[in-house]
Amino acid sequence: MRYEEFVEEGRNAVLEAFRAGKTVDRLFVLDGCQDGPIKSILREAKKTDCIISFVKKERLDQMSSEGKHQGVIAYIAAYEYAEVSDILNAAKEKNEDPFIFILDGIEDPHNLGAIIRTANLCGAHGVIIPKRRAAGLTATVSKASAGAINYTPVAKVTNIAKTIEELKKENMWFVCADMDGELMYSQNLTGPIGLVIGNEGEGVSRIVREKCDYITKIPMMGNIDSLNASVATGVIAYEIVRQRMNKK
Amino acid sequence: MRYEEFVEEGRNAVLEAFRAGKTVDRLFVLDGCQDGPIKSILREAKKTDCIISFVKKERLDQMSSEGKHQGVIAYIAAYEYAEVSDILNAAKEKNEDPFIFILDGIEDPHNLGAIIRTANLCGAHGVIIPKRRAAGLTATVSKASAGAINYTPVAKVTNIAKTIEELKKENMWFVCADMDGELMYSQNLTGPIGLVIGNEGEGVSRIVREKCDYITKIPMMGNIDSLNASVATGVIAYEIVRQRMNKK
Repeated sequence: MRYEEFVEEGRNAVLEAFRAGKTVDRLFVLDGCQDGPIKSILREAKKTDCIISFVKKERLDQMSSEGKHQGVIAYIAAYEYAEVSDILNAAKEKNEDPFIFILDGIEDPHNLGAIIRTANLCGAHGVIIPKRRAAGLTATVSKASAGAINYTPVAKVTNIAKTIEELKKENMWFVCADMDGELMYSQNLTGPIGLVIGNEGEGVSRIVREKCDYITKIPMMGNIDSLNASVATGVIAYEIVRQRMNKK
Repeated sequence: MRYEEFVEEGRNAVLEAFRAGKTVDRLFVLDGCQDGPIKSILREAKKTDCIISFVKKERLDQMSSEGKHQGVIAYIAAYEYAEVSDILNAAKEKNEDPFIFILDGIEDPHNLGAIIRTANLCGAHGVIIPKRRAAGLTATVSKASAGAINYTPVAKVTNIAKTIEELKKENMWFVCADMDGELMYSQNLTGPIGLVIGNEGEGVSRIVREKCDYITKIPMMGNIDSLNASVATGVIAYEIVRQRMNKK
């Protein structure tokens, strides 16, 4: 498991990670544990925006790779996150209409990696992911991105719906992928666009969906429900590319 | 590891798997082992078209999940393979031009599963994979296919290049994906078509590539080399879908 390279467990290791300024995505602490070292770790954690979960011993035992968690396990981001403004600036520098992927809860690190890879190659300027209930930039994601993570900025935001509202003020418009949308081939997908992709199982959340200007659909001719999330992202992203190329 | 559900180890279990008529994709036997039970297993194996590898004890120990391999480990296909003729018949029954995915050495079971899923949804009639150096229909592939494996036939052939030649006699033509091809948007991708996708690292092999009528290219605007194999398959497959829909 390559992921484990970026998991720290045990009180000293975790405290050290915070003090070294590493980006901790998630902190798991033994529920009810209140002693000094744990309090120091929680104090450091609260200075950052990492997600803290209080869990039972069994959960920590299960997550632990070394069996020495001492009541605390931290997931460290393998890469630094960008800001949303960095993504907009990347578009500006290239003198292009912004083209941004917004991932409303992609959980599988292989999917997230493959999507960042696609973003890089289709000319998107960046990827926005939510803080909660989503994969972060772990070593598995980095590997699956085939190096794209070094080039394509990924920003992590607290509230996807709010971020969409803010980006609308920058004249962007948003399309989300869903089964009951209009066929993508008959929509105009040019201009400054945000492509919104939902969670692997549940799709785009209601609140995010309501912020979108259009709903787009990939034609489906088979027996099952949906494409793999990273494949669906690629298919729509390249329809956007095709339309942008035609427009030039 | 879900995969392990379909790994049998130990002499009795493996012999039983052959006698029960299960499809063994690969058989690993301790190199130099020549006793009666192993000979019986090899005799059964040679009646089928499974790949037999003679390996060192360390390799078997590493592969073993239970630590009781007794010199033999078998990988069992989670699903039955179809014949190439089944795929052609599926197209005929629907009164459609054949649309077949040919995978020249996809190794990652998650990619294979996602590609079968895409084949199902984009209206392809089946998937052809090679016997050697490729993922087979394991439980991991089945899971990644999201059930598509129950609907979309997958045929396993000894020689992809030869299969392409045979399918050309059925008036099919073949396009493979590669960096130095012509841009897919400017090619005519309609008609009875085979879409050839290469190995994750090495792309399409020379011998298979030479059998293809056209080479097609996805536009790449980024810093890295290539899309994830299942994403690339999806992007080209849906360009084929778009052109087929336009033609109607």
